[in-house]
Amino acid sequence: MNRRFYLKALGAMVLLVGGLLAIGAACGGDDKGGTGNGGSGNADLDAIAQERGLTPEDMKHALQAYVPPGQYDPYIMIASGGQSGQVLVIGVPSMRLLKVIAAFTPEPWQGYGYGADWGNTVLAEGNPSIPEGTELTWGDTHHPAISETGGEYDGRWAYINDRANGRMAMIDLTDFRTKQIVAVPNAETSHGGMFVTPDSEYVHISSKFPMPWPAGSYADLSEYQEKYRGVSAWMKIDQATGRVNLDDSFEIELPPYNQDLADSGKLVSAGWAFIGSWNTEMATGGLGPDGKPNPLEAGASQNNFDYLHVINWEKAAEVAKTKGVDTNGVKMINIQTAVEEGLLYLIPEPKSPHGADVDPSGRYIVVGGKLDPNVTIYDFNKIQDAIAAEDFEGTDSFGIPILNFDSVMAGQVEVGAGPLHTQFDSQGHGYTSMFLANGIAKFTLGEDVVKTDEAPFTLIETIPTNYNIGHLVTAEGDTVSPDDNYMVALNKWSIDRYAPQGPLHPQNFQLIDLKGGKGPMELISDTPIGLGEPHYVQIIKADKLHAIDLYKPGTDVLTMQRSEFAIDAGQEKVERNGTTVEVWMSATRSHYTPDILRVKEGDTVKLHITNTEQTRDATHGFAIANYNMQASLDPGETSNFEFIADKPGAWNFYCTEFCSALHLEMAGWFLVEPQ
Amino acid sequence: MNRRFYLKALGAMVLLVGGLLAIGAACGGDDKGGTGNGGSGNADLDAIAQERGLTPEDMKHALQAYVPPGQYDPYIMIASGGQSGQVLVIGVPSMRLLKVIAAFTPEPWQGYGYGADWGNTVLAEGNPSIPEGTELTWGDTHHPAISETGGEYDGRWAYINDRANGRMAMIDLTDFRTKQIVAVPNAETSHGGMFVTPDSEYVHISSKFPMPWPAGSYADLSEYQEKYRGVSAWMKIDQATGRVNLDDSFEIELPPYNQDLADSGKLVSAGWAFIGSWNTEMATGGLGPDGKPNPLEAGASQNNFDYLHVINWEKAAEVAKTKGVDTNGVKMINIQTAVEEGLLYLIPEPKSPHGADVDPSGRYIVVGGKLDPNVTIYDFNKIQDAIAAEDFEGTDSFGIPILNFDSVMAGQVEVGAGPLHTQFDSQGHGYTSMFLANGIAKFTLGEDVVKTDEAPFTLIETIPTNYNIGHLVTAEGDTVSPDDNYMVALNKWSIDRYAPQGPLHPQNFQLIDLKGGKGPMELISDTPIGLGEPHYVQIIKADKLHAIDLYKPGTDVLTMQRSEFAIDAGQEKVERNGTTVEVWMSATRSHYTPDILRVKEGDTVKLHITNTEQTRDATHGFAIANYNMQASLDPGETSNFEFIADKPGAWNFYCTEFCSALHLEMAGWFLVEPQ
Repeated sequence: MNRRFYLKALGAMVLLVGGLLAIGAACGGDDKGGTGNGGSGNADLDAIAQERGLTPEDMKHALQAYVPPGQYDPYIMIASGGQSGQVLVIGVPSMRLLKVIAAFTPEPWQGYGYGADWGNTVLAEGNPSIPEGTELTWGDTHHPAISETGGEYDGRWAYINDRANGRMAMIDLTDFRTKQIVAVPNAETSHGGMFVTPDSEYVHISSKFPMPWPAGSYADLSEYQEKYRGVSAWMKIDQATGRVNLDDSFEIELPPYNQDLADSGKLVSAGWAFIGSWNTEMATGGLGPDGKPNPLEAGASQNNFDYLHVINWEKAAEVAKTKGVDTNGVKMINIQTAVEEGLLYLIPEPKSPHGADVDPSGRYIVVGGKLDPNVTIYDFNKIQDAIAAEDFEGTDSFGIPILNFDSVMAGQVEVGAGPLHTQFDSQGHGYTSMFLANGIAKFTLGEDVVKTDEAPFTLIETIPTNYNIGHLVTAEGDTVSPDDNYMVALNKWSIDRYAPQGPLHPQNFQLIDLKGGKGPMELISDTPIGLGEPHYVQIIKADKLHAIDLYKPGTDVLTMQRSEFAIDAGQEKVERNGTTVEVWMSATRSHYTPDILRVKEGDTVKLHITNTEQTRDATHGFAIANYNMQASLDPGETSNFEFIADKPGAWNFYCTEFCSALHLEMAGWFLVEPQ
Repeated sequence: MNRRFYLKALGAMVLLVGGLLAIGAACGGDDKGGTGNGGSGNADLDAIAQERGLTPEDMKHALQAYVPPGQYDPYIMIASGGQSGQVLVIGVPSMRLLKVIAAFTPEPWQGYGYGADWGNTVLAEGNPSIPEGTELTWGDTHHPAISETGGEYDGRWAYINDRANGRMAMIDLTDFRTKQIVAVPNAETSHGGMFVTPDSEYVHISSKFPMPWPAGSYADLSEYQEKYRGVSAWMKIDQATGRVNLDDSFEIELPPYNQDLADSGKLVSAGWAFIGSWNTEMATGGLGPDGKPNPLEAGASQNNFDYLHVINWEKAAEVAKTKGVDTNGVKMINIQTAVEEGLLYLIPEPKSPHGADVDPSGRYIVVGGKLDPNVTIYDFNKIQDAIAAEDFEGTDSFGIPILNFDSVMAGQVEVGAGPLHTQFDSQGHGYTSMFLANGIAKFTLGEDVVKTDEAPFTLIETIPTNYNIGHLVTAEGDTVSPDDNYMVALNKWSIDRYAPQGPLHPQNFQLIDLKGGKGPMELISDTPIGLGEPHYVQIIKADKLHAIDLYKPGTDVLTMQRSEFAIDAGQEKVERNGTTVEVWMSATRSHYTPDILRVKEGDTVKLHITNTEQTRDATHGFAIANYNMQASLDPGETSNFEFIADKPGAWNFYCTEFCSALHLEMAGWFLVEPQ
């Protein structure tokens, strides 16, 4: 049957059943427009498909991805924003961008870093104390980690690291704002070592490239092995606020390998963690006119095995209390102590490994060696046995015991070229991204985990991705109970997937249907991400989030308490004290009170603005021409500015958020009389 | 029939016709995955719809919005990004965000404002010279204007204004980068006065709030009428580069009303322009503890009529050459000259008008008075007759002649509460957004334009929007030949349309099917915009864009010529001259050459980096830990940094764009030896 005939036959059939469908449509309740062309049956669908060139498969996928107006996506993706420094909130399956959350980079829509105190405070506290005077206005967000309770995402907070500068941010998921940035002591960079422990006791972050030790000292690369060190940082989470408390945090000194992806143990392996590494060669490059022809990419790829770091963090937390040494504001367990106390072991992992992912049962740890076509799967039970039996191949040059590879390896699966990261379903499958093979491989894990009658450690199927997949994610994929419906491939190149828009291409997220883990995997949609390179993401059930719609009147968003500068309507005032002018201002539709501010050039202005509304979505902005200030004042919020009136003139201020029919009239004058 | 019963009935029906549908599916030809559940015919569709709760109407809309993986959206939306300061590129009908283009706000993904010379240059040149020393790091983008040839979008450049600071930016649509920011002389703010003339001779921008005159002087609000002035600025476009050339630009002094939305004449009205205004009351507010109870929203809403400004710009361009007075770098035509030369007229427009939009024929100008339920439609032919006949009601207090309202008004249509903006199809319809009524009204224009048998100046239908619509746009809507398929409502509030994500809500874009202008209008999809308040947008046919994929080797992106600092592979070098270290570096998969840089604390570093690749999408980044530098180097691009090595240490630098399987290895060391 050719396509035209198919459509004709389909049309005839639809006429037969049109009556019934029309009844259905009339009961659908959402038919606002009245199409006037015979109802909404499949004749309509096929006409649209024909006009738009959609295949029958396309039609299915359209229905899988579409979320009707006014309905909610059942899943929310918390995505890193890569070099943008921000965090993206995306609905799944529609893949619509719900919000960009400013994290490490000032962002004026949210009034973050444009004069309002809350954002300026967060950004400033993220500036490293070593070296002094460093002011950072961007980050490279890589790995989000949603807080967990009992190994399940609990929707309270999300943490994300800064690849470039060894920092981390905490996002409060009640209002989706960044509330804290922490410059991680003794870490210059970070990459994939971020996760939360199953009950959010700690958020872990580790260094990527080592740095001269102790942090703040200098050493040339010729002293790399002796003086450079990495770190595994365990940042204590305050259970009331989600903030990191450095006093109760601790760190473990690590060899100058490049520590990489990491994951938390869970269930059977609770209390333990696993960190992949590469460049155990400790190569430092040296390419160039004055160097040796030895780029890091070659120097770091010599060894057949690098080391998976195995850490007993629950014990380490205790050891840190007595044997941790205060080091730049945090307790440090040095390598020797870690070895003596049985906190740190190494496992050989082939070859230039990247991902290190723990399956939902906690028993299996899957490593992708990007220069090896296999994924290697370790068994936590065997690891425990080997540790108990001191079944070591020896130690590395730092004295850390290396577990016998053959004793702890449970299986290997040849998946294809360039395996990187692995995610899981609840049926005992792993899904591994393959950068070089441009696809995802699905395979079985081992005994006690595989819920199907498939053989363990066996490749089941692959699906192509477009192009150059990095991470991938399954819904609730890092929890003890992944959902088995959606997977997203985070492709690094989009090449020809979108209409040309210049040499800088968007990333390409591909939504894939997992069909209850029963497969076959099926591509639903492509989504361009045109803001940074979202490196990793997590997907949480939307109903686990408990976001607020309003702030209580006069809220300081950092403390979530009433601000000392809050006012209610009618309490507005202006006070001058010497050369300081202090203003308590209200904002409501459609005016500021007061709406004329008169100061003299050079005055210090302290401006406290309260959005006195308690109506959902009644956000007001506040900006002054040429003063580079911009606030976003959500309903109930109080924000504060302090600045010098250094530009004489009559400057218009106005509401930057379209709030009402008379929004344009929501403006005033900041009059700075020249000296 | 309730919804549950409907779904049950639908399921039963689907079983009946499943066999026939399965035959159809087998002929579809694109079934890649093998679903294993009876093919991909409508049985599948209905099963998905049932599972996901989609109504028959939803199913249609899903097919209308879906763009299959790897296929291109036929339309591209260039959207302002509001307070984010950026510009968004969105595909239509999929509404996928293809790119955020940094314009007024530094953005690290694109390496814009994070040390690379091109972006730093553009941002710095956008700093106003009045007042001196003003450094702006954000803007409030409002009105994009795509360049035109013969009244059609030509896809060369896009311009956008900064509401907050009276500036404009030029985006090169060959590489989708911002290439120029202009601080518009004598304008402190701007709003909706941006458009390009039909052959891109000029890009127009006008002030929003007036400022003390001449710009740079000070005057209190008590001298508002005497000393404050607005401006209509005609910025000359260099036809080779798209850049604004101030030398050939001119301005027209305007009364201290709030000039607002504006549009270019076209075809019959070519050479003319129209600018709405409000606050002809010249109210200045005064609300607050020390003021009078007279907010601007009330003071500016007293008059029954404000003034549509009618400008003969073609003649003004000539007059400026002889009678323009150099004023802060641009030729200014004062009000008196404008009146004497017949360049400027006023027309009464009811009441607190907002939109002022010229229909595709150029004959009709539609004004939405936001406090009047009518749209008022003026006839350009009548305007010309009235000017010729000096059919004036009088003059305003600045001596500008006011055309007789009844002589130039062609019709009024009562559309509903809060009419704002109007867009058009090719069938003689206007579509007006109604903020207060939460909807869009479709009505007919007048004679010679209405292509249907509908009566002129008649309301045809309305469609609800969710919620608080501001602007709206039709595909190719500001050209002489709009397409009649897609319309997008730019709703300011989303309230309950999306899963809760805190008090700051996204905007809500609603895609509407115009059905060839024949209606009825039908809602296809909702799209959240979670980054700023995109104020206005234009939609261009994607095939009118001619973006490049690669830069020629060693391109300086501002000149699009070979950079003097470009190198080819093998030409890398490091030169020290006193305390200056100059580096010519290459970047290619997967290393930098050189990859170790040794300098001393306090050295000046001049770093020239060329991405020597010529492969599509092979972008490399470059960032140094704790140095707050970030470049995005597209294939062929050369960028330059100059900075002081003021932070001693061993700092990792690395590629911030995931470029290859050994991307993590694309890193090096910036060694700053302490003094």
